[in-house]
Amino acid sequence: MRPSGRQPDQMRPVSIETGFARHAEGSALIRVGGTEVLCTASVENRVPSFLRGKGSGWVTAEYGMLPRATHARGPREAAKGKQSGRTLEIQRLIGRSLRSVVDLPALGELSITLDCDVLNADGGTRCASITGAWVALRLALGRLVATNVLRQLPLRGQVAAVSCGLTAAGPVLDLDYAEDSIAAADTNFVLTADHRIVEIQASAEDAPFTQDAYFRLFGLAQQGVSVLFDAQTAAINAAEGL
Amino acid sequence: MRPSGRQPDQMRPVSIETGFARHAEGSALIRVGGTEVLCTASVENRVPSFLRGKGSGWVTAEYGMLPRATHARGPREAAKGKQSGRTLEIQRLIGRSLRSVVDLPALGELSITLDCDVLNADGGTRCASITGAWVALRLALGRLVATNVLRQLPLRGQVAAVSCGLTAAGPVLDLDYAEDSIAAADTNFVLTADHRIVEIQASAEDAPFTQDAYFRLFGLAQQGVSVLFDAQTAAINAAEGL
Amino acid sequence: MRPSGRQPDQMRPVSIETGFARHAEGSALIRVGGTEVLCTASVENRVPSFLRGKGSGWVTAEYGMLPRATHARGPREAAKGKQSGRTLEIQRLIGRSLRSVVDLPALGELSITLDCDVLNADGGTRCASITGAWVALRLALGRLVATNVLRQLPLRGQVAAVSCGLTAAGPVLDLDYAEDSIAAADTNFVLTADHRIVEIQASAEDAPFTQDAYFRLFGLAQQGVSVLFDAQTAAINAAEGL
Amino acid sequence: MRPSGRQPDQMRPVSIETGFARHAEGSALIRVGGTEVLCTASVENRVPSFLRGKGSGWVTAEYGMLPRATHARGPREAAKGKQSGRTLEIQRLIGRSLRSVVDLPALGELSITLDCDVLNADGGTRCASITGAWVALRLALGRLVATNVLRQLPLRGQVAAVSCGLTAAGPVLDLDYAEDSIAAADTNFVLTADHRIVEIQASAEDAPFTQDAYFRLFGLAQQGVSVLFDAQTAAINAAEGL
Amino acid sequence: MRPSGRQPDQMRPVSIETGFARHAEGSALIRVGGTEVLCTASVENRVPSFLRGKGSGWVTAEYGMLPRATHARGPREAAKGKQSGRTLEIQRLIGRSLRSVVDLPALGELSITLDCDVLNADGGTRCASITGAWVALRLALGRLVATNVLRQLPLRGQVAAVSCGLTAAGPVLDLDYAEDSIAAADTNFVLTADHRIVEIQASAEDAPFTQDAYFRLFGLAQQGVSVLFDAQTAAINAAEGL
Amino acid sequence: MRPSGRQPDQMRPVSIETGFARHAEGSALIRVGGTEVLCTASVENRVPSFLRGKGSGWVTAEYGMLPRATHARGPREAAKGKQSGRTLEIQRLIGRSLRSVVDLPALGELSITLDCDVLNADGGTRCASITGAWVALRLALGRLVATNVLRQLPLRGQVAAVSCGLTAAGPVLDLDYAEDSIAAADTNFVLTADHRIVEIQASAEDAPFTQDAYFRLFGLAQQGVSVLFDAQTAAINAAEGL
Repeated sequence: MRPSGRQPDQMRPVSIETGFARHAEGSALIRVGGTEVLCTASVENRVPSFLRGKGSGWVTAEYGMLPRATHARGPREAAKGKQSGRTLEIQRLIGRSLRSVVDLPALGELSITLDCDVLNADGGTRCASITGAWVALRLALGRLVATNVLRQLPLRGQVAAVSCGLTAAGPVLDLDYAEDSIAAADTNFVLTADHRIVEIQASAEDAPFTQDAYFRLFGLAQQGVSVLFDAQTAAINAAEGL
Repeated sequence: MRPSGRQPDQMRPVSIETGFARHAEGSALIRVGGTEVLCTASVENRVPSFLRGKGSGWVTAEYGMLPRATHARGPREAAKGKQSGRTLEIQRLIGRSLRSVVDLPALGELSITLDCDVLNADGGTRCASITGAWVALRLALGRLVATNVLRQLPLRGQVAAVSCGLTAAGPVLDLDYAEDSIAAADTNFVLTADHRIVEIQASAEDAPFTQDAYFRLFGLAQQGVSVLFDAQTAAINAAEGL
Repeated sequence: MRPSGRQPDQMRPVSIETGFARHAEGSALIRVGGTEVLCTASVENRVPSFLRGKGSGWVTAEYGMLPRATHARGPREAAKGKQSGRTLEIQRLIGRSLRSVVDLPALGELSITLDCDVLNADGGTRCASITGAWVALRLALGRLVATNVLRQLPLRGQVAAVSCGLTAAGPVLDLDYAEDSIAAADTNFVLTADHRIVEIQASAEDAPFTQDAYFRLFGLAQQGVSVLFDAQTAAINAAEGL
Repeated sequence: MRPSGRQPDQMRPVSIETGFARHAEGSALIRVGGTEVLCTASVENRVPSFLRGKGSGWVTAEYGMLPRATHARGPREAAKGKQSGRTLEIQRLIGRSLRSVVDLPALGELSITLDCDVLNADGGTRCASITGAWVALRLALGRLVATNVLRQLPLRGQVAAVSCGLTAAGPVLDLDYAEDSIAAADTNFVLTADHRIVEIQASAEDAPFTQDAYFRLFGLAQQGVSVLFDAQTAAINAAEGL
Repeated sequence: MRPSGRQPDQMRPVSIETGFARHAEGSALIRVGGTEVLCTASVENRVPSFLRGKGSGWVTAEYGMLPRATHARGPREAAKGKQSGRTLEIQRLIGRSLRSVVDLPALGELSITLDCDVLNADGGTRCASITGAWVALRLALGRLVATNVLRQLPLRGQVAAVSCGLTAAGPVLDLDYAEDSIAAADTNFVLTADHRIVEIQASAEDAPFTQDAYFRLFGLAQQGVSVLFDAQTAAINAAEGL
Repeated sequence: MRPSGRQPDQMRPVSIETGFARHAEGSALIRVGGTEVLCTASVENRVPSFLRGKGSGWVTAEYGMLPRATHARGPREAAKGKQSGRTLEIQRLIGRSLRSVVDLPALGELSITLDCDVLNADGGTRCASITGAWVALRLALGRLVATNVLRQLPLRGQVAAVSCGLTAAGPVLDLDYAEDSIAAADTNFVLTADHRIVEIQASAEDAPFTQDAYFRLFGLAQQGVSVLFDAQTAAINAAEGL
């Protein structure tokens, strides 16, 4: 039995609220169970120096967690004066994941920064960030089309992410914090709606695991992301009045 | 005329939602017009080294702003590796303001950290932070009483804050961003429900101003905080089921 | 009785020596009782990036304290690798205070940096810094006029600052360290010679205080700054051979 | 055709020289083609604070690259004042990978730090680091047994890592720099000699890739690590005179 | 001819004023020509961790320069967030130089920090710092004897320092800034009153120099320090009323 | 007797291997006894801002030590976030030493960075770095001539460095770690093949030393560097096929 009483292949309730951040070109407040992440997309009229003059755009991400998003208060990274290795690793993952479906040359010399800030944490924050960031990005791109900055969406796919793990209840989908902290293996799958792979991160927490277990986790993930794609689509449609 | 069409002595709509941060001992999501700040109170079983063994507690505050809380995206302080002078100044102000009404020896050897994170900014974020932080603090203290850690609330007063300024429309109450950015003088008043002064910060933005103008701003502030005290009281009563 | 035996409305002895820093365009070594601050004004032929090409000048300030300016040696901020919140707050205050009386467009595309370094500390260092910095600034501007860089002084007023506080002896003027460390309220008034307000910072140290007490502190400050304006004027006259 | 003329499933030449770092309890200079990493294991008689008094040991890793290990000189991280996100991500990976096969309670209250410093880089430095670090770790543990600090090797398995990628030549094993910089997908597999999974990191570089391609990469990796396990075993045997 | 009109073996005027820093256990404001350094000695009742419990004391130094001690304003190290290599090199030199004449075990478990802050710079600041720091140290030690903390001065010698260089005028003693900035070789000699060597730093600025030239510089330095020893002795005698 | 059994004027075995760093324009792996330093010269097509447009080149150096180059593991400077004072002092010394024999205007607007990374440490790492860096520099310059970037070597001399010290065995040449850690005086001599002085650093470790002792150390150094010049010449000849 899972601590939450869920079936092994059962996602937590998912909701995506758009427009929460009033100034951002796109924003999504995503809730996956008790995890809540505010994702904003900010469009800026410049590119990093390595892209200057090359006619290509850029998409990047930053990740943060409010100090009391967690059970015990964590130190504020701004006050410590540096971002942790975990934070850097997550924001690099979010950035790579979103870039993989954007046609950067078609974006033109614009930058889009995806800020993912965790307001409440209950496991799976990096996956919720990717899933929410895609919505924020999609809305920002839609606005660029609506305002005639771009002629069409420079977007090649739909991306969402989910974690799976090996627990006492066997392979399970969408770990919450209670499961995550004792899982024997922790995996994150970033997948596209057309069944392709964007990123896979699989880690043995305690001891190496078998290839068979790994494939069962992969299967659960493929099942789980379909729920997320539906939630993303519904949020976009609601926001754009479709 | 004010940009928002408000009367000179008219506050923006105020609301305070408690319990938004699920893990915190107390939390308040305060909205003052378009400004929205998530305030959490975290109780920890330790005190800073300068208080160790002295039988006294401590209250401190940290302040942050999500990168896209503002019109244009601001750099993330955690990524820059340091908090700005403005941030440090504001969090010192919040900490001093709340400590002034807490009976620290009666708190015992506990620390309470008030995290004020701005989700959306439209002027007056430091004042909203103080006003919301008082609610989060009050709820956390109430929980310490309810769980028999403390016998009674170690609280000597109720604190709220409001900004006033000199604009083309004369002295006005509760500046929003449009007013704040062009005000000739900017003042922040932190006051108690029993009409005492906790902190006053008054700054000439462009040119020194007269004592008479200053007293008119003070009068507006006294009027404004009464609205905030009512909102605080209503939020506490709702949260504690009174 | 005050620890120093002074009357409640009595300033400590004030002296201002100009020219101590031989390389600076203007310098003032100000002594207020046992507090001693070396203030220098450095003129540079450039402006911060946000002002570039706008035809306006800039005035800014930095503040520091020698490690052994105080009773117990404090850590050197350069060695710690960051300036404290207190330092940043003070240097922002000094900068704002001086800018409020400079006609920045009339200064042209020049920057003036006011460095205030405390050589000996006995309370009131931020107020002494402002008062001394005005002299250094005035001398540097005078030299720009004397060397035909400017046609006239781009200065709209004379600024000085003094602290007042509530102590066991009641409201008193010009706190020294012994008083400052136990005052119930600590206020800093930055005022102009024509009786206007530049900055007011009032803080309850221990418990909120009454409006009446506050007004008495304000009255003492107005009395105290007149001594400082005289000392400033005398120092300028001596330095410029008037 | 691969730039190096290798077959798709062909590793570069691998050699592991032990004892290069004369002071370390264990060291391995691993060469995989033109990539050369010096791995040292340092045993220290202390554990991080979160393990103090719990009777368990710790294994951690740090990674660095000499500034001119690469085609163009890179900035020295010590001079920049911080480690890049890439560095932190890699050293976290190395640490997790090695911990997964160490019986930490059996190690007792000792720490082992694995330093992996790249002397020459030609792709695959993180995989070479893991493979070499396992040898350094194994030698250091062997010495602890030889000197009677431990009764037996607290080691549950043998770990090695290899990268695979999708290139113009199809799925290939053991990417060198020329391939890595243009691969459409880049994957790192950390596997054990008994065919279990320690870590998998798979990233689409340009566009999401198919599940089928992914499984072919996995197959190549399983083939490649067997070469590494042999090299590790030979190095250990040579070093311990077996 | 030297820019200052001095003879090759002529020191600039030297004066040492004690007691300038009112809180320090010992202080000396040393002036060597236009160079002016405030040196303070702070006694603290603790030692660095590597000496704890070993019954030995410690002497260390920190060096700083006020931003406008120089012709052009230099950036404040506290604001930049780090001390320059030059600063660290100088403060390490000052610390080593003073430690070489202190009997650290006889000092007992006390630390003495020598802060050398340059108020005005005109060349030779590291040498003036060492010379002044010896006076501050000697006064602080004298106070420890006078207050019966120590039975006798734990001091084995008298240290002073002077720079010499090769200029267009040949080998010269006590370089000022005008000479220092164009000297072909720059040397600093830290010597004792009993003709021993504490430190020598000799650097070719532009091209390597001959051994003969070097010995002539050494001879000038030996001559120069005698003036400094006299000034130190006079300052100590005046301060201690001898 | 010396710990190593060497004669007082006997160097340790010296070897210099070129080409170890495959990407660098010049590289030398120098071994002096148990000390081993990898020196690389990187040529870059730019100069620091203070030289831009002046037609002159630049030579600079960086120094590092692998964490386990020493008996006990030292903290990684990149992880600590700053270089120690010792590191900065050494790399400044290496840079000055090499610049003293380069004709910078003849180099043209190119920068050469000498990275000296200690792989194994047994005393004398700064001297080995200088000696090895000269070889790396000479090879890089030779390549610039060979590729017609320069018409002739912009090199005015050959530089090497050796340490000497006062030990229980009297004045000795080329200190190893066992000697260095207990020497009463530690000196580093950077000299040219034509018997000129580039840098001298002499430090009393425990107590000031006599001029006579100092001259004996100088004599030993002059003897020692001749061995190093031969090793440098042999390495260059071998590398360039002479």
